Amino acid sequence: MSKVAALQSSFHLLFFFVIFLCLVNTIFSGVTSSFTRSEWPAVDIPLDSKEFAVPNNQNAPQQVHITQGDYDGKAVIVSWVTNTGPGSSEVLYGKSQNKYDHGAQGKSTNYTFFDYKSGYIHHCLLDGLEHDTKYYYKIGTGDSAREFWFQTPPEINPDAPYTFGIIGDLGQTYNSLSTLEHYMQSGGQTVLFVGDLSYADRYECNNGTRWDSWGRFVERSVAYQPWIWTAGNHEIEYRPDLGEVSTFKPFLHRHATPYEASQSSSPLWYAIRRASAHIIVLSSYSPFVVYTPQWHWLRDELKRVDREKTPWLIVLMHAPLYNSNEGHYMEGESMRVAFESWFVHYKVDVIFAGHVHAYERSYRISNINYNITSGSRYPVPDKSAPVYITVGDGGNQEGLAVRFSEVQPDYSAFREASYGHSTLELKNRTHAFYRWNRNDDGKQVPTDNVIFHNQYW
Amino acid sequence: MSKVAALQSSFHLLFFFVIFLCLVNTIFSGVTSSFTRSEWPAVDIPLDSKEFAVPNNQNAPQQVHITQGDYDGKAVIVSWVTNTGPGSSEVLYGKSQNKYDHGAQGKSTNYTFFDYKSGYIHHCLLDGLEHDTKYYYKIGTGDSAREFWFQTPPEINPDAPYTFGIIGDLGQTYNSLSTLEHYMQSGGQTVLFVGDLSYADRYECNNGTRWDSWGRFVERSVAYQPWIWTAGNHEIEYRPDLGEVSTFKPFLHRHATPYEASQSSSPLWYAIRRASAHIIVLSSYSPFVVYTPQWHWLRDELKRVDREKTPWLIVLMHAPLYNSNEGHYMEGESMRVAFESWFVHYKVDVIFAGHVHAYERSYRISNINYNITSGSRYPVPDKSAPVYITVGDGGNQEGLAVRFSEVQPDYSAFREASYGHSTLELKNRTHAFYRWNRNDDGKQVPTDNVIFHNQYW
Repeated sequence: MSKVAALQSSFHLLFFFVIFLCLVNTIFSGVTSSFTRSEWPAVDIPLDSKEFAVPNNQNAPQQVHITQGDYDGKAVIVSWVTNTGPGSSEVLYGKSQNKYDHGAQGKSTNYTFFDYKSGYIHHCLLDGLEHDTKYYYKIGTGDSAREFWFQTPPEINPDAPYTFGIIGDLGQTYNSLSTLEHYMQSGGQTVLFVGDLSYADRYECNNGTRWDSWGRFVERSVAYQPWIWTAGNHEIEYRPDLGEVSTFKPFLHRHATPYEASQSSSPLWYAIRRASAHIIVLSSYSPFVVYTPQWHWLRDELKRVDREKTPWLIVLMHAPLYNSNEGHYMEGESMRVAFESWFVHYKVDVIFAGHVHAYERSYRISNINYNITSGSRYPVPDKSAPVYITVGDGGNQEGLAVRFSEVQPDYSAFREASYGHSTLELKNRTHAFYRWNRNDDGKQVPTDNVIFHNQYW
Repeated sequence: MSKVAALQSSFHLLFFFVIFLCLVNTIFSGVTSSFTRSEWPAVDIPLDSKEFAVPNNQNAPQQVHITQGDYDGKAVIVSWVTNTGPGSSEVLYGKSQNKYDHGAQGKSTNYTFFDYKSGYIHHCLLDGLEHDTKYYYKIGTGDSAREFWFQTPPEINPDAPYTFGIIGDLGQTYNSLSTLEHYMQSGGQTVLFVGDLSYADRYECNNGTRWDSWGRFVERSVAYQPWIWTAGNHEIEYRPDLGEVSTFKPFLHRHATPYEASQSSSPLWYAIRRASAHIIVLSSYSPFVVYTPQWHWLRDELKRVDREKTPWLIVLMHAPLYNSNEGHYMEGESMRVAFESWFVHYKVDVIFAGHVHAYERSYRISNINYNITSGSRYPVPDKSAPVYITVGDGGNQEGLAVRFSEVQPDYSAFREASYGHSTLELKNRTHAFYRWNRNDDGKQVPTDNVIFHNQYW
């Protein structure tokens, strides 16, 4: 072959390679939605609004919230606050309304944060419950008593259908209210909350009053169904200038988690099993590198996952590992380096995060072959990898993160900077319907719909 | 130009580029030393050895150790243990031997770890000392009293000469003893200890007795000159199986650090200034990502560095950010991602780490342009970057990390898997002599010598 022929041959090869790349690009190209909406200004609802109304009667329980209380869903932790006195920490409960044939005794705690003094925060475990059963419960005494109910989940079963809602970075603006109301119409049975609750730390001296108003704001949902708590950066509340150097102080006092049931040593990372799902909650702002408690725990917990019983393996964290918004770009990179190879090895179905105030969903991609010596890797399609979903769009006072990277990266499937929440309907061991619901003129609009095929079955 | 001519021209260009690459490679190629020596087996010295001898008299102070007690070197924390009773926490001191005209009152603490009960651990701050002065001090009472001395550093001054020793992963084998004895002959005035002290956690139930023997072992040096403490993974001692879930418990009880003087909220990360050096100590196993206390503190501390006063900016940590040994490869990656850009921005002179049981020194390189979306970066030469030095070769019972990556990476300047320690002689604001000293048949052999030019001046 002459030199000219060789050159022409090379040119042809290059030509076909470019055509191939264009085709691949078409198949995998993601969507950047042009819809950007901030329905109301990103300001908090005033404290005297009815959305934060204090119950009328003397020292009545307020800020009532429940969460799963054990590993498998046969227990519930009921928490509430009484403001003017310790009151009772007892919960009466039973299967019929007005017939509370069981009782459980809880404990109360309180804390100060600089010049703020919390009310009496009660936590009470109801255990030994039956699966798939409606329970009524009553807290407080006399005229101040209040009554609520919850439904326990079905027994752990690979085909048990169940619907989770996913909410993050909620705050307490009118946009937060819109998200919360839309979620409550969505049929979700349990909320996976991916961190950043009240944004009280945005107020002077981290005003704890905004923790109280947030507790009253979300009570309409969380008094009736469990919210599974992940801690975000707004829960850290590290204020050495105010003499407050312990981290997560208000959050840990207010929100109990069933961490001991999953052999964790910290309320900030733990796991629960619910219906057909094994849900792992991680703490982005606690130690997680090799040898640390969270690393040891996650390594062991992943071994305990039994996909024959709970086929859906879901991980929650606050800071996303993959996100192409300019806001908080690559802030999850340290945790990605530490844990991504495990998530791929154990074929995690989906990882939900918050932190970035916009919505984004990834393709199944991984970057686990990156090697600092050889360089030259970036995310590649990987069938074993999780889908990464950021739902930091609850609607808090910081507003939307509207600047995505100009070119949508290959790993990004759909992204849109507006408010909303997600739902994940587990149908059986093989299929789940996932939907992201945008807040739009007071309506929720299903915008990003995907069917997930289970990564194990 | 014909196609053939164009092809030939391209070929010539390619040829010269390859020649250029070879030249660059010659200039920057690193050395992998063929010397590998484990002089003695990697087993601990028996507990009944004279190296661990308990002082004779009743309840005499033992495990005496000192560290800097303030930001600028005018204070010292004296620590020791009494085993059979609380005894006194007072330190008598003065500028002449046998004339102790000053006294300071300390405090004592103790702890249990599973079935181990510590002795009484005393910490006493001597402050308001004069610079560049020899002080004698006395602890214990009556026949059990013991006397030591130390030399305060010169006043903070950009040209103040000072010699630091650097020791890591020391343990308590005969190799550890060799390292310690060699260091004591080296003229070092203060030890920068890069973590992993006693390796007590390698014993059944993390036997605290091996913390005590280690304290007696190193007393020969650390009773007379400050050791600056960094916590390593062997200090974590997280043993949920034994009910021990708080981290760093023995280390924090035994080793005080002057963290409050540098506005830190944790004894695990802090800074000191000494002679012409500003030394920053980081904790590899505490939270360090954005928003965490260590991240906030480091950001603020780097702003407080005044290179006009302390031209030499040195960082200590346990897990190295750059190391090409197969042992613990890339375990420092999460922290590199979090902090490397700051180290380059502030032109840190040198970062010392331990963890990997071998010696390695890097060129000035950085990997701060890595972007998970675009990929394709790996360390490139960078004049603003620190030199990364791993000195995890103190000689502990785990033995040497003898397997380096087969091809020495471009970033690696010198590496050798044998025991030793380093010294850093700061001469003035512009020059420092750095040396790594191999333990070899009972002799210390200066093996890796470099002159550092200050990164600021």
